[in-house]
Amino acid sequence: MSAPFDQLKYNADGLIPAIVQDHASGEVLMMAWMNPEALKRTLETKKATYWSRSRQSFWVKGETSGHVQKVHSVSIDCDLDTILLKVEQTGAACHENYRSCFFRDVAEDGSLSVNETPKL
Amino acid sequence: MSAPFDQLKYNADGLIPAIVQDHASGEVLMMAWMNPEALKRTLETKKATYWSRSRQSFWVKGETSGHVQKVHSVSIDCDLDTILLKVEQTGAACHENYRSCFFRDVAEDGSLSVNETPKL
Repeated sequence: MSAPFDQLKYNADGLIPAIVQDHASGEVLMMAWMNPEALKRTLETKKATYWSRSRQSFWVKGETSGHVQKVHSVSIDCDLDTILLKVEQTGAACHENYRSCFFRDVAEDGSLSVNETPKL
Repeated sequence: MSAPFDQLKYNADGLIPAIVQDHASGEVLMMAWMNPEALKRTLETKKATYWSRSRQSFWVKGETSGHVQKVHSVSIDCDLDTILLKVEQTGAACHENYRSCFFRDVAEDGSLSVNETPKL
C-alpha cells in the first residue's frame, strides 16, 4: 500500500464507503465499501471492486451477474472518509434488478413505497 | 419512534449513512449520518438534519452557515441501510466552500488533485 492511500480515513473495520453514481445520468446507483486494496484494484483495473462485509472477501461488481461498473472517476470528500465513483453501469446496479438500489421512498410516517426507478 | 422506522438498519453506533444529492443537477454533494430521530426530523421539517459524530449532537445543515438543504425526497436502498436525500442546496454544501464535498479526484497512484467542482 503506497503512502497516498494512507491519508484516506478508514473506519474501525478498515473500510471506507463508496457512493456509486452513473457518470452520464447522474443517478445514484448504490453504496458499497472498500478497503485500501479494493480502492487500489478499482483504480488500476477501472472495474469497481469492493470489500463484501457479509462474505469478507473482495467483490468485483458484476463478476457473476455481468452487471459490471466501468469506472470513469474516483473522488474523495473534504474529510477524506467517503469516496464517490462515477461509473458506466451495465444493466442493473441492484441485485433486485432495479437500475438503482434506491428504488423505494420513505414517507413522513416512515412507510416505504416503490418509486419510479426503472426495473430492468 | 414509530414502527416503520424500526425496519431500517442502523450500524453499531445506531446510525445510517445519508447520501445527499442536488435534486436538480444530480450532483452528489456530501454524505452525513442520521439516527432515527434525525431522519424523523428531516421528514417532518423538510430541512436536512443529521447526527454529528464529532459533536454528538443533532445538526440542522445550514443552521449557522445559512447553507440549508430543503429536502425534496428521501429514498432507501435495497438493504435498508443507506439513505439518499435529494435536496435543494443553498450555497455550498462543503464547509470548505466548494459546492460539493467531493472536490478532489484520486489518481491511480492514490494522489489527490482538485477537480472542477465549483468553489463559491
